[in-house]
Amino acid sequence: QVTSASGEGTDAVVILEKTPFQEEKVSDLLKKHTKLELQMRNDIYSTYHLYPPPELSEIKTTVVYPATEKHLQKYLRQEVHLIRETWEDYKNITLPFIQSQSFSIQWVYNILEKKAEADRIIHENPDPCNGFVLVPDFKWNQNQLDDLYLIALVQRREVKSLRDLTAEHLPLLRNILQEGKEAVAKRFGVPGSQLRIYLHYQPSYYHLHVHFTALGYDAPGSSVERAHLLADVIDNLALDSMYYQKRALTFALRADELLLKKFQEAGRV
Amino acid sequence: QVTSASGEGTDAVVILEKTPFQEEKVSDLLKKHTKLELQMRNDIYSTYHLYPPPELSEIKTTVVYPATEKHLQKYLRQEVHLIRETWEDYKNITLPFIQSQSFSIQWVYNILEKKAEADRIIHENPDPCNGFVLVPDFKWNQNQLDDLYLIALVQRREVKSLRDLTAEHLPLLRNILQEGKEAVAKRFGVPGSQLRIYLHYQPSYYHLHVHFTALGYDAPGSSVERAHLLADVIDNLALDSMYYQKRALTFALRADELLLKKFQEAGRV
Repeated sequence: QVTSASGEGTDAVVILEKTPFQEEKVSDLLKKHTKLELQMRNDIYSTYHLYPPPELSEIKTTVVYPATEKHLQKYLRQEVHLIRETWEDYKNITLPFIQSQSFSIQWVYNILEKKAEADRIIHENPDPCNGFVLVPDFKWNQNQLDDLYLIALVQRREVKSLRDLTAEHLPLLRNILQEGKEAVAKRFGVPGSQLRIYLHYQPSYYHLHVHFTALGYDAPGSSVERAHLLADVIDNLALDSMYYQKRALTFALRADELLLKKFQEAGRV
Repeated sequence: QVTSASGEGTDAVVILEKTPFQEEKVSDLLKKHTKLELQMRNDIYSTYHLYPPPELSEIKTTVVYPATEKHLQKYLRQEVHLIRETWEDYKNITLPFIQSQSFSIQWVYNILEKKAEADRIIHENPDPCNGFVLVPDFKWNQNQLDDLYLIALVQRREVKSLRDLTAEHLPLLRNILQEGKEAVAKRFGVPGSQLRIYLHYQPSYYHLHVHFTALGYDAPGSSVERAHLLADVIDNLALDSMYYQKRALTFALRADELLLKKFQEAGRV
């Protein structure tokens, strides 16, 4: 749910999300200051409206302020189109587009340089070439493991996305897979076999990062037209160093995205 | 979220569900008796805990009482585990398991032979080797296009899954992609660029079939750990005929699935 509020010429994006129940608070929910209103009864089945006290119904709220036009567009509901991007398309359309944009990733550098969120770091491998930092994603409030969501941000700064990866990056990718799993198991007790570990293409920012989400959580962006399992990426690169410079990749673009317009202008949609 | 409460020897199932926001109440949520607590700030991004008043955070509650053992089983949470299946695993564990099971796929043959659902066929290519039948999936009631869901069933009967595919099957797969898109555009007015076209691995039945779902629909089974885009499958086979007899494939199994037990017995989980 997104609200965009215009005030004094400056926009904000406000994202409201209901979060999963916390198991240990469910019994409170069923007794403590909770108003219950019968809605329907039939045989052994009945339904109720339950109105919980505020402290048991937290809504996760994210604010982007001031928000640019790009932030606003990102969150508005849009028609979506699939693109099948060849390597030629990437070189001729997508790459020039990325380079022409100056979407700030200062917040990533802040984390890597410990200027922000230093206390939130779950794991760090400081190697400038094959290292990374693992932090909870903004979308996860860390109250329950059901919607566990972490991000691994690589230390090196010149790798934009999946399209840049070659066999040269295998040590980095293997570190992320191995150490990331271990760190999550150690800190949160969630084993690697219950983690979905993947990259987005297109990513929402062009500094290589890897998503870690709970397998049981239907995380936004985990569907097949956007997510690429890290284990598959590693195997593809081991099979063919140039795999991601040869293969067409599919992704979805919203109707108002500038990149879609670029593909349309090039006659590729 | 399900709670099973035992009292005086009689169980109850209580199902608690947070409901979607109502658009007309969002502005109330942002001002009316709402407590806001800053959690984190980084650059233009900040996150908050928002504690809404009870009347703005209704929880839908369903009670089954008294509940039988069957009710309890139905709602108990199953743990899910990711398997990374190598080709050796497939040959030694998965394939013998599939062969030992006698999943009936008579319903598929009934469709192919026009003994059932003949009036539901959207498109048919009768070629015994490279042909297929396109029908609406059981899950789709055809009332709205938002959750459009169709299935292409291949005419040939010996192809069990993705694991069996080689370059030999490229004409069949290309027919499904091309004719399937055209048929959906013609019948439903949904262009190919708004369709997610993919195979499942593991599939729920071992007769090769392809899923067509609306891109905007978060269809069950469309996430990266189960879905394989048909366009990717075609490109992988064109690159290497034996791609799916070489590559490890990832899938999730629930704790009570027999195949998981087979992997556990083989020491592969």
